[in-house]
Amino acid sequence: MFEIDFRFNEPFELESGELLDEVRLRCTIYGKLNADKSNAVLVFHALTGSSRVGDWWNGVLCDGCALDTSELAFVCVNYLGSSYGSTSARSIKKKRRGDLPIVTTRDIVRANALLFEYLGIEKFRAVIGGSVGGMLALQFAVDYPELADEIISIAATPLSAMGLALNHIQRHAVRKGDIELARKIAVVSYKSPRQFDTRFARKPNRNGEDPGIGHEHRFDVGGYLDHHGEAFRERFEIESYELITKAMDLFDLTDVEIRKIRANVSLVGISSDWLFPASDVKSLRDRLVRLGINATYHQIDSDDGHDAFLSDVAEMSRVLREIIDDERKEPARHFFDASKGLELCRGGIRRAA
Amino acid sequence: MFEIDFRFNEPFELESGELLDEVRLRCTIYGKLNADKSNAVLVFHALTGSSRVGDWWNGVLCDGCALDTSELAFVCVNYLGSSYGSTSARSIKKKRRGDLPIVTTRDIVRANALLFEYLGIEKFRAVIGGSVGGMLALQFAVDYPELADEIISIAATPLSAMGLALNHIQRHAVRKGDIELARKIAVVSYKSPRQFDTRFARKPNRNGEDPGIGHEHRFDVGGYLDHHGEAFRERFEIESYELITKAMDLFDLTDVEIRKIRANVSLVGISSDWLFPASDVKSLRDRLVRLGINATYHQIDSDDGHDAFLSDVAEMSRVLREIIDDERKEPARHFFDASKGLELCRGGIRRAA
Repeated sequence: MFEIDFRFNEPFELESGELLDEVRLRCTIYGKLNADKSNAVLVFHALTGSSRVGDWWNGVLCDGCALDTSELAFVCVNYLGSSYGSTSARSIKKKRRGDLPIVTTRDIVRANALLFEYLGIEKFRAVIGGSVGGMLALQFAVDYPELADEIISIAATPLSAMGLALNHIQRHAVRKGDIELARKIAVVSYKSPRQFDTRFARKPNRNGEDPGIGHEHRFDVGGYLDHHGEAFRERFEIESYELITKAMDLFDLTDVEIRKIRANVSLVGISSDWLFPASDVKSLRDRLVRLGINATYHQIDSDDGHDAFLSDVAEMSRVLREIIDDERKEPARHFFDASKGLELCRGGIRRAA
Repeated sequence: MFEIDFRFNEPFELESGELLDEVRLRCTIYGKLNADKSNAVLVFHALTGSSRVGDWWNGVLCDGCALDTSELAFVCVNYLGSSYGSTSARSIKKKRRGDLPIVTTRDIVRANALLFEYLGIEKFRAVIGGSVGGMLALQFAVDYPELADEIISIAATPLSAMGLALNHIQRHAVRKGDIELARKIAVVSYKSPRQFDTRFARKPNRNGEDPGIGHEHRFDVGGYLDHHGEAFRERFEIESYELITKAMDLFDLTDVEIRKIRANVSLVGISSDWLFPASDVKSLRDRLVRLGINATYHQIDSDDGHDAFLSDVAEMSRVLREIIDDERKEPARHFFDASKGLELCRGGIRRAA
């Protein structure tokens, strides 16, 4: 694994028309890019993830794993707006005296694309992501149709009204300065009722509290959520939360956009996901097929809810192998048009000093 | 409809052993109690409801409705701890210099029972409630087995770990003084994804906001939730929220308790409820049957989520008629033992001045 910090010292124009005076991006690469750079796979992380795929996809990405670093090179870029090494929402807001511009999934994908010329990658074997990462994989397929053979989008669709509602109330908490509560709401939406019942049932908090004797005494699930809230406050910036959840909200695909896709698209639903229900993922697959895209549906059968793509390593790996094996049998219909590959890297590209 | 304010000027001992120096209770009665008081039905309201059943069960309770006020007299008592006319959590806390005792479903049911001697009711034809009201109907069946022939408990079970988690994060908001956010989290848990999609989809807020142009611009579902939060702040006390959600948390039934039930029990699940999933209601029915209780399961088929018992008047009415018709065919196995009826009314009972 190696890590590169890029700094683009030229203005980056957001979709909104607003300008960022520079863009810093942290990129992590697992595995070895081969001589012609034809073994690259692009990975998009989720809302609170970093470019260190090996940290959050431990067991899914490794030598001999479903995402096999002995064969392929996995490239992941921390999002524009995230706070794990790239230009963070907090730094943007500070420079603009408190004004936080809207950053869209198109902006994030385009910021990623800035790197590819530098890295010498003309095309990705696949583009993979879960949750927001899955949205970004689809956004990439639309915006850079020639740059990937295969898209694997896991547990992602444009947000439903329930998803919009959950983001809305999380931002309500965030604006009150309470990122812990935002995280707790999010964690509840990432898990399934059955999973919680199996794990916590109605047990009192494991530290010995007794819910029956006082208002401050918690059930085990309450202690678990509080722990997650506190840990999150230490590791994530409130401005990034606001920026990325807004990007999630705005992600949507028109029919015209979908028709631009040239890659094969594998959509993965999770049986117990209620934030991005499997039925919504299936409906999106049907829509893609109606619009002429080569799209397939795969399913993670797990009680782990939305988080299953991270936590249920066995099922996630099984589904990834299923998709990869399918692809080996029937490669992408569309092939790379090299003449278009490098148009993407707009603006000057300079290596970080 | 008429309303009575009671004040019990003797100490009321809570299950915790703590004493309240008085108990005020507001009681609303719809329909006319007959001469021998044998046509009374007890109704328990939900978390934020009042004793005015006609307000929140409009269309379900009226002359000629499924709950027919031309035949029966419906009695509803505002909970001990609620703030719609009874001794409120705020008033309790104030008297105790900031200390809020735990009030349980047993305490609430026992406070209700204080009234029956005064009202001259020796037995209820039925005891009905939804959500927390359904928990209380079951609690009543356990604590006063001789006082009702029929129990109808709608969308209620002991809280699952997910339910406990949702109450926990709502109280996190409440303790920060943010009852609006608590309400928004609750509203999300009371609705179904399909219902939200049908009603709001990804539409921008109806007041003309455009989510794409600014962080403050909302989707329609966001505007809806904000409206509910604001309206709730005006109408509900934060201390009552804390007290009653804690009572919900603690509601649970041991096998020994369930075996005390003598009434027929009709449990009603809602197909799209994810706070109290229909499968959990069915499991509770199975458990009751295994423990020798005459329990049946009925289902509201609705996209309205947990709230369907309030909002889907047609389905709620259909199911209530189904239960009532069944009961007419096969009346309760257990009959009232008049000698025990009045033991319940512990403590002195005095009419409000």
